[in-house]
Amino acid sequence: MPTPILISEVGPRDGLQSIDRTLPTAVKCAWIDALVEAGITEIEVGSFVPAKLLPQLADTADVVAHARQHKGLTVAVLVPNAKGAEAALQAGAHKLTLPLSASETHSLKNLRRTHAQVLEEARTIAAMVKAAPCKAHFEGSVSTAFGCTLEGEVTEAKVVELAEALMAAGCDEVGLSDTTGYANPAQVRAVVRAVHAAIGPEHLTGLHLHNTRGLGLANVIAGLEVGITTFDASLAGLGGCPFAPGASGNIVTEDLAFMLEAMGYTTGINLEKLLNVRQILADALPGEPLYGFTPDAGLPLGFKQAA
Amino acid sequence: MPTPILISEVGPRDGLQSIDRTLPTAVKCAWIDALVEAGITEIEVGSFVPAKLLPQLADTADVVAHARQHKGLTVAVLVPNAKGAEAALQAGAHKLTLPLSASETHSLKNLRRTHAQVLEEARTIAAMVKAAPCKAHFEGSVSTAFGCTLEGEVTEAKVVELAEALMAAGCDEVGLSDTTGYANPAQVRAVVRAVHAAIGPEHLTGLHLHNTRGLGLANVIAGLEVGITTFDASLAGLGGCPFAPGASGNIVTEDLAFMLEAMGYTTGINLEKLLNVRQILADALPGEPLYGFTPDAGLPLGFKQAA
Repeated sequence: MPTPILISEVGPRDGLQSIDRTLPTAVKCAWIDALVEAGITEIEVGSFVPAKLLPQLADTADVVAHARQHKGLTVAVLVPNAKGAEAALQAGAHKLTLPLSASETHSLKNLRRTHAQVLEEARTIAAMVKAAPCKAHFEGSVSTAFGCTLEGEVTEAKVVELAEALMAAGCDEVGLSDTTGYANPAQVRAVVRAVHAAIGPEHLTGLHLHNTRGLGLANVIAGLEVGITTFDASLAGLGGCPFAPGASGNIVTEDLAFMLEAMGYTTGINLEKLLNVRQILADALPGEPLYGFTPDAGLPLGFKQAA
Repeated sequence: MPTPILISEVGPRDGLQSIDRTLPTAVKCAWIDALVEAGITEIEVGSFVPAKLLPQLADTADVVAHARQHKGLTVAVLVPNAKGAEAALQAGAHKLTLPLSASETHSLKNLRRTHAQVLEEARTIAAMVKAAPCKAHFEGSVSTAFGCTLEGEVTEAKVVELAEALMAAGCDEVGLSDTTGYANPAQVRAVVRAVHAAIGPEHLTGLHLHNTRGLGLANVIAGLEVGITTFDASLAGLGGCPFAPGASGNIVTEDLAFMLEAMGYTTGINLEKLLNVRQILADALPGEPLYGFTPDAGLPLGFKQAA
């Protein structure tokens, strides 16, 4: 029985928040439609942050409303705090992710909050989620989990501590995010194993990996080996990387999907369709760097997907 | 005890043969010197093919002579046939690699030789190597080992058959080469294990991987898991990929070295020095695309190599 792996498409949030231009809502919706048509079943469609901070994502509620029309699509959003979570629940998002940066320096710089303050938000959000009429999935994501450009090394012990704290605060599960692209495959195995030992493997099923130093897919292999079944990725690696010009930030959805399908995993994705989705971005964002290799290289001669 | 992994630098051969311009011999030598200074201990410095076929590598004998001055450097060359091998042995190369394409269609197109004919060359070369005053290492490399743009799928059985035939012809060992960038990590594990079972793990220690679809370093992880201890790579991924514009052909030495060192393997390479070597290429080949992410991203804050 082939193992199902979920690719969680985060381009509409992590990709779009990293570029200067604001994509019109209609284009975002067309993009989402094309992703669903290609077999993507989870999309992080935006982030509930103040419009003045991230104008690129100011239409998130509208995008959520559009995305919810697709039966079978998990509509995910990022929320930086309880206020954002409230808006997310009101909009009908299926999954909320709250980032908690392992590096407190990064947390203060990014969100102007200490660990304790973010955990307090987590408790508030968990209570909201519990009280809401529709069941939403609440993920606490430990970001800078593999190192930080401000603090340097992030210890395994710190990641475990925060994962435990997020679960205690009421999260349904925890995610790990390699915000800075510092992770290497040995570290991925070790940190995931440590968190699994602390909170149970069923409570850490997803990784958000970056390709800043080209190790993105190698880190996916490590994640697969320790039982990870969800990987975030960005179509065309949209958004690049603020830390390294020319480096794709997020791993590229198309290359990831090809690798998984080639290895015999099932993703539910139609690769031929997926490889064409980036045309929407190429048309709407002329001149925006698009990353990844598989669309240009094409699928291998004779390549057949398992299903 | 950390595991030593050898990075075999093939840029001066595989990289240079793929670009239009011919690098002056003096620049090649300076490049080699810088690689050695950075801790590289094996370099494929050229190929003994007729100058009219590959003018870029016409000076290989001179480059070999220069490279041999570095004590502790294994000077490797590609040889397409016995004639090339003769020149290689005369020049004093330490390691000869003869490619045998698993896809016979590719073999005929590339070398105008059938499998049987290439194996005949192998027997001749093995005899030459045995008779030569200085001991050279003779590797038969199965290319298109993971698939071919002309034939499509290449079976595991074919690769095993050819590996056995190369050993029977007198090779010291066999290599596997993903010429077309078709390989995926599961396939790498399976094919390496099958060849190991047939000819012994000590006779297949190296892989030549391409990054055509972005799977290069993921495939390295798979190789490490099944006991591979040598990986070919090209500095700055020089040479790109004829099959996919914008795709690096060879995996990028700098990204590979960072990954291995970050994982705790020992490569003997000084990363800080290595990351600067590409400047030689940038200066000598203005406008030539240089690939890889680690040089631009830099090493992680606080990163220390093990030794």
